[in-house]
Formats: sequence, structure tokens, C-alpha cells
Amino acid sequence: MKIAIIGSGNVAYHLALAFHENHFFVSQIIGRNKKALEEIHQRTGFAYEIDFNKIKPADVYIIAVKDDSISESASKIKVKNTLVLHTAGSVSLDVIPQNFRRGVIYPLQTFSKNKKLKYNDIPFFIETENEKDKETVMELAQIISPKVMYADESTRNQLHLSAVFACNFTNHLFAIAEELCHQKNIPFEYLLPLISETTEKIKNLSPKDAQTGPARRNDLPILKKHISGLDGNTKKIYEIISQNIIKTYH
Amino acid sequence: MKIAIIGSGNVAYHLALAFHENHFFVSQIIGRNKKALEEIHQRTGFAYEIDFNKIKPADVYIIAVKDDSISESASKIKVKNTLVLHTAGSVSLDVIPQNFRRGVIYPLQTFSKNKKLKYNDIPFFIETENEKDKETVMELAQIISPKVMYADESTRNQLHLSAVFACNFTNHLFAIAEELCHQKNIPFEYLLPLISETTEKIKNLSPKDAQTGPARRNDLPILKKHISGLDGNTKKIYEIISQNIIKTYH
Repeated sequence: MKIAIIGSGNVAYHLALAFHENHFFVSQIIGRNKKALEEIHQRTGFAYEIDFNKIKPADVYIIAVKDDSISESASKIKVKNTLVLHTAGSVSLDVIPQNFRRGVIYPLQTFSKNKKLKYNDIPFFIETENEKDKETVMELAQIISPKVMYADESTRNQLHLSAVFACNFTNHLFAIAEELCHQKNIPFEYLLPLISETTEKIKNLSPKDAQTGPARRNDLPILKKHISGLDGNTKKIYEIISQNIIKTYH
Repeated sequence: MKIAIIGSGNVAYHLALAFHENHFFVSQIIGRNKKALEEIHQRTGFAYEIDFNKIKPADVYIIAVKDDSISESASKIKVKNTLVLHTAGSVSLDVIPQNFRRGVIYPLQTFSKNKKLKYNDIPFFIETENEKDKETVMELAQIISPKVMYADESTRNQLHLSAVFACNFTNHLFAIAEELCHQKNIPFEYLLPLISETTEKIKNLSPKDAQTGPARRNDLPILKKHISGLDGNTKKIYEIISQNIIKTYH
């Protein structure tokens, strides 16, 4: 099975490394960022190409580009009726042109360029237009991780939405906490043991049961005190999340 | 130095265990919850008392009770001019009656009863009314952890406020993510590797630089799609946090 990856961003980078780590050969990586492609090449030995008119034939193309470039990238593939997969959480497989066998291979993880990942820990959610391609995509994902599940579009959307709350928004709360620390010259590192414990806890306890803090206790004097020290969006975020915690538990 | 702890909740429990682990003897633990006190006694051998009229003399009392009970608990101490500390993040030492030498020993951690903690990893923030008590409280906290810092009331308030964002609110976002998963029969466990990576990242990278996701990319079609699938407070939380991420980076 000949696999090509289209893209030169973080997802393409980590997919290439993950295949390489599992001794699986990717026949070509096509992307716009030459420097990024060279780095992938150095780490994996995989051939790369920056000219989208020189995409070589392959059995499966994995398109790991920005959501709104998937359609255009796919249109550069000249092999008819081949299997074309995108990697996006909240995009329908319909954005891939109809002349392909279409599918999705969605890794539920946050990818940063120079951050090592345990690839076999990543859950992959796959979807295929045709039943007969299901097994192929399943096996492809299983090269990287044993955690491969089938998820239809609406389930995948919901997974992505959940991930936005659990990962992207959580990180933004860390950024707000960091900013609050810096206002008083407090090193943000002081918060790291607390943050570790917060995520450690929910490995064995539902987050609903793990909730603590002033809003959980409905401690109105503390809430009032905290709100008085905030302004703008940070204040609004404090208010709405506290309100929702109180609503959930009281 | 004779130390007594007042309280039978999670903070009292873990302080008692932390002193015990470090071979430091607590002379008496006074609280209302007999069952909880018995458990502490079983684990540490420390004497306990449920009758607040039987508080024995000590050199230092650590009051680990609900914020609005600190004052009342302290008033039960009959030893004049002794050192009395509370453990709260957002409470002034002024709530302790004036006839004591007053102070604060604030552990920046989230405490659950049956969750083991690495006590020597917890940062302690201390404050004393009198300069001459500073060293005593410093040494007391250092029995448990090497990370002891002096923090005045306003710094401590800000630490607590930061902790609410980084820990309590983060946990609530995990609870929302869990609820969204359950709506589509997705096991919440699928999100755990992503959550681990989110907190792993910020050990080496400022959360401000680690931000990813649709709002970070200002990906309006995805934001619109996500918002259309939400309602009530969850929708409001999605909107305000996304808005703030866009404002921060664009």
C-alpha cells in the first residue's frame, strides 16, 4: 500500500514521524513549506515535493492541511478513484471532490512541532464513504496506534467540540492564570503542581465529582471579591463559569 | 514546638498526613466530624477532640476550616497571645481575633480526601502579622515542603484567583467536555491523552505560546458550526472564551 501525505504543518510532521517510527514507508510528502518538508525528510528519509503538479500516484492520500485548503489540495491529485482522507475534526468528507473514494482519519491530539508525542497513545477516529474502505483506513491508523474507532461525522464533530473545551479553552485559562500571576510578579511555575494534580485527579474520578473551589461551595463573598479584582473578558469568563458551576451543583 | 490543627476536612486531613510523613508530631486535632478525625488518628496516631471547649494549649494553631468559620473556630482557643494561622487563599488574617499573633499558611494545591499527594511538591505561601513570627511559620511550612514563600494578602488573593482559573475552572471545562462526550455515547477516556498533553506542554512553553484550536486560527466557519451545536451557558462559555482568544492573538 503506497501512502502519500499532503501538508507540511504540525499534523503532517507528526503523522510522518509516527509512520516512520513504526517502520512504515510514506512514498511522498507534498507541501508548500520547503523548510518544514526538509526537516521531515531529515528525520524520516521520506521523499518530498513542493510542486503540487508533481504529486505521484499512491493508493492512499492523507491530506493534513488547513480545513479550508482540503478541497483545493485534493483537487491536485490526478489518480482517479483513489482513496483520499482528510484529518480534520469538524469538516465533512464531502469537501473532498466526488471523483475520489473519500474518508477521514482524525487523530485526537494537539500537535506542536518540537514536542515529542507517544503516538501509540493517540486515539484515531476514522470515517469512510464506502464500507469496503473502512478496513483499509482502520489498518492504516493501526500502524500508528491501537486506539482506532469508527466515528460518523456528527460524532467526530462532537469529539472535536469536546476537545476544544478540554484542551484549547483549558490552555487559554492557563494563559489567563499566567497573566494574573505576572501582574503580581508571581512565577507561573508555582501553579504547575496544582495543574498537574487537577488533571491527575480526573484519571480516576469524573470531573463532575472532582469539582472544588469557591463556586462549587457557592461561596458568594469570595466570588464577589474575585470579580471585583477583574475586568473585561476575564471578568465575564469568571462570572459565566462560576454561574454554571453554581447552577450544576446547587 | 507544639502544633494543633483545627478542622476535619480535606485540608486538615492532608496537613496532618504531611506532618506525620515528615515525622513531625501534631499534639491535637480538633474538629466536628468524628469519623474523619478517627481516620486521621488511624493514619497518624495524633490525638483528636470533637469538643471545641477541650482545645489544649499549643504554640501554634493551624485553622483549616471553611472560610466563614475561621473566626469562630479561633475564638475557641483559650491560650492568650499564641500563634494562630489560617490556611485560606482569599481571606485576610484580620478574621482571626486580635488577641492572637496572627498569620497564614496557604498551601497552593487542590485536596481530595482519598487522593495521595506529593506533599514536598506543594508551594506554601505564608504571611504573619508580626515580623518576628515569620521565621517560625516559614520553618513550620518547611517541615512539609521546601517550596515556601512569603506572600502578602494581595499577592495571596491573586494566587488564589489564578488557581481558580487554572484548576477549578479548568476542571469545569473537563466536566463540560465529559457531558458533550456522553451526549454522543463517547467515553470520556478518549480525551485523556489530549488533556495530558495540554498540561504537559506548558511545563516547557508559556500557555500563551502553546495556544492552538479554531479560535487561535480565527477559523470563523468552525466557530459558527460549534456554536450552533451548543446552548445555554455552555454556548456562552464557548463564545466568550473564543472571543477572548481571538482578541489576544488577532
